[in-house]
Amino acid sequence: MRALRYHGVKDLRVDNDIPEPECGENQIKVKLHEYSSPTFIPQPGSPHPITKESMPIPIGHEFSGQIVEIGRLAASHPNFQGQTLKVGDKVAVQPTLACFHCGPCNDGYINCCDSAGFVGLSGGGGGMSDYVCVDAQFVFKLPDHVGLDVGALVEPLAVAWHAVDQYPLKKGDSALVMGAGPIGLGVIQCLKARGAGTIIVAEVAKERQNFAKAFGATHLIDPRTEDVVKRSKEITGGQGPHVALDAAGVPASLRDAALAVRARGTIVNLAIWEKEVPFQPNTLVFGEKKYFAILGYLQSDFAGVIKALDDHSLEPERMITGKIKIDRVAQDGFRPLIEEKDKHVKILVDCRA
Amino acid sequence: MRALRYHGVKDLRVDNDIPEPECGENQIKVKLHEYSSPTFIPQPGSPHPITKESMPIPIGHEFSGQIVEIGRLAASHPNFQGQTLKVGDKVAVQPTLACFHCGPCNDGYINCCDSAGFVGLSGGGGGMSDYVCVDAQFVFKLPDHVGLDVGALVEPLAVAWHAVDQYPLKKGDSALVMGAGPIGLGVIQCLKARGAGTIIVAEVAKERQNFAKAFGATHLIDPRTEDVVKRSKEITGGQGPHVALDAAGVPASLRDAALAVRARGTIVNLAIWEKEVPFQPNTLVFGEKKYFAILGYLQSDFAGVIKALDDHSLEPERMITGKIKIDRVAQDGFRPLIEEKDKHVKILVDCRA
Repeated sequence: MRALRYHGVKDLRVDNDIPEPECGENQIKVKLHEYSSPTFIPQPGSPHPITKESMPIPIGHEFSGQIVEIGRLAASHPNFQGQTLKVGDKVAVQPTLACFHCGPCNDGYINCCDSAGFVGLSGGGGGMSDYVCVDAQFVFKLPDHVGLDVGALVEPLAVAWHAVDQYPLKKGDSALVMGAGPIGLGVIQCLKARGAGTIIVAEVAKERQNFAKAFGATHLIDPRTEDVVKRSKEITGGQGPHVALDAAGVPASLRDAALAVRARGTIVNLAIWEKEVPFQPNTLVFGEKKYFAILGYLQSDFAGVIKALDDHSLEPERMITGKIKIDRVAQDGFRPLIEEKDKHVKILVDCRA
Repeated sequence: MRALRYHGVKDLRVDNDIPEPECGENQIKVKLHEYSSPTFIPQPGSPHPITKESMPIPIGHEFSGQIVEIGRLAASHPNFQGQTLKVGDKVAVQPTLACFHCGPCNDGYINCCDSAGFVGLSGGGGGMSDYVCVDAQFVFKLPDHVGLDVGALVEPLAVAWHAVDQYPLKKGDSALVMGAGPIGLGVIQCLKARGAGTIIVAEVAKERQNFAKAFGATHLIDPRTEDVVKRSKEITGGQGPHVALDAAGVPASLRDAALAVRARGTIVNLAIWEKEVPFQPNTLVFGEKKYFAILGYLQSDFAGVIKALDDHSLEPERMITGKIKIDRVAQDGFRPLIEEKDKHVKILVDCRA
C-alpha cells in the first residue's frame, strides 16, 4: 500500500510498496480513503520504545477513515462511546500510543505515559497511508451527518477540548486566549461550545484575528498595539478573565496571561516551549493564581468533541482551508502552511487513489 | 501605651506614649501581655489604603493575647469557630486587613484583596504593643491547654496550613518540601498532621535538617551533594512525590520541584520571589503538572490550625527557640535571627511589663 513516510529532514516520500498492516485481535483496521491532516513533522531518532520503529516513519496523526476489518477481541465489546463498531463505519482515530503499565498509565493518565507516542509520529502506522490498524479503544464512531473531512479535525479539537476541560468553566465565564493558530482557534470553539460568555483573543496576524472572530471570539486584542493585561481587565469589568489559555507559548504570553487573570484565576498552557523563558512567580502569587500544563488528550476528550459535533455546538468546517491529493503532499503539501501560514488553518490530505 | 514601631530602615523604637486603641463596635480589644513573634520587617511607603497610616508603623503580625474588651456588635454573634468570646479569653489573631468590597473580596478571597494588608505591617496596630483592637471575625479562641506562646505560632502555621490545603492530600500521599526555614518547618508539620505518608525535605543547612527531622520529615536530601529529582523519585518508588511545596523560592527549587513530582502532580509555591527566574514550562507540560501559587490564609486556616493544636496533631512547641523582652527587641531582638539564623526558628517577644 501507499504511505507518506518521513525519511529524514526535508525528505518526505510517498512510498508505494509498503505491506498492508494486519489487524490484531484487539485492533480495528481503517481504510484511509478520505482525509488526514498534516501538521506535526516527526523528529528522526532511535526506535520508539512502544513501536520499536525508527525512520522512515509513516506520518499523519490527525485522521479519519472507514472500518474495513475488526479484530476478534475488538468485536466482543463496545467502544469508549458505548457503541458496537461495524465494518463500513466512519471513524476518527485517537493516535495515542501508551505502554499501559507505567506509573502514569496505572494512574489512568495514558497521555502522560513514560513512553508516550503517537501513531503517525512514532511508528505504528500513520494517517497518510492507505490503511492503518489501531487499538479498538481509540476508534470513535462519527455521527452520520459528520463528514470524514471534519472527522480529521477531531484530533486537534481534542487537544483544545482537553485544555478547556481542565478548568471548571461555568456558563458565562470569561476567557483570554493567547494566539489564534490552529490550536488557539480550536480553544475558541471549545470555549464557546462549553458556554464561555466572553472570549478575548490576543493575536497579531490580521487573518488569524478574522478566523478568531468567525469561530466565536467576542473581543480581539492586537498585542503589538494594545496592552493585553489592561484591555483584558477593562473588558471584564476590572477583574480580569477567569481563565487564560496560552496557545502562543512566548515569554509575553506567559507574563500577560498570569497578570491578566483575576484573583484565583487559572492559566492553562497548551504550548510546547523551545527553551527556558524569564518568569516571575509573583505574577501568580499576588492573586493566588494557578498554572496548569496540559498534554494531549484522553478518550473522554475525543468522545466529548464528537458529541459536540453531533449536537452542532462545535462546527469547525471553516478550519479546512485547503485539500490536496496525497501524491502532491511530498512536493508542495506543506508549502502553503509555511509560506502563507496565516491564511491557512488545516489543509487536508485526500488519500483516495 | 508602649508599641514597637518601625520608623525607617534599621530604626525600630519602643515608643511609650502611644494612645491606647479604642475598641470599635465590631472589634475586640486584646491585651498583648504575652508573646508575639517578629519575622517580617515592614517597608516604608505611602499611607496604606485601608488603614491610611504611614510610618512610624507599629509592628508584629504574629501574636496572641487576652481579651480585655468586646465591642457592642462583636458581642452579639459567635466568632468563626462558632464560639462566644468573653473577656479574659486567650486568643490568636488573624492579622488580615481587607477592604471587603473589591472583586476578590466579593468572591470570598480576602487574602487576595486588591488593598490587602496586615495588622503589624500596614498599620491598624501591631502585635508588639500593649494593646491592639481587631475585627471580631479575626479573633480565634485558643484551647485551654494551648499557651499564649504557642498561640503566637498560629499565624505562621496558618500560612503552611493554607498551602497544604490547596492540594487534595490523601492519607499516605508523598510530599517534597523545598527548604526548612520557619515556613518549610510549618509545612512539614501540617503535612504530617494531615496524613502525608512520606515527607521528603530538601535543605542545605544541617541545623535546619535536624529541625525538619524532629518535626516529621521521613527523608532528608542535601541539594549540595545529592540530586533532588533523582533521590525524590527513588524514595517514592520511581514515580516522584504527589506534591512538592516550595518554601525556598530559588531557580533550582522551582526546576527540581517541577521535575520531581509525578505525572499530574502539583507544585505549591509559598515563596515570595525577588526577581524573574529562568523557567522551562515543559518541565510541567511533560507529565501534565500543575503549579499553584498561594498567598497568606483565610479564617478557615486559622480555625484548622487551632483545631489541630487542640487534638495534638500539631505540636509546634519546639519552633520556639528563644524568648526576649520587648524593651530588648530594638537593640538585639533581630540579631540572633540574622547572625545565627539556622539555629533559630521563632524568637518570641514578651510584651509584659
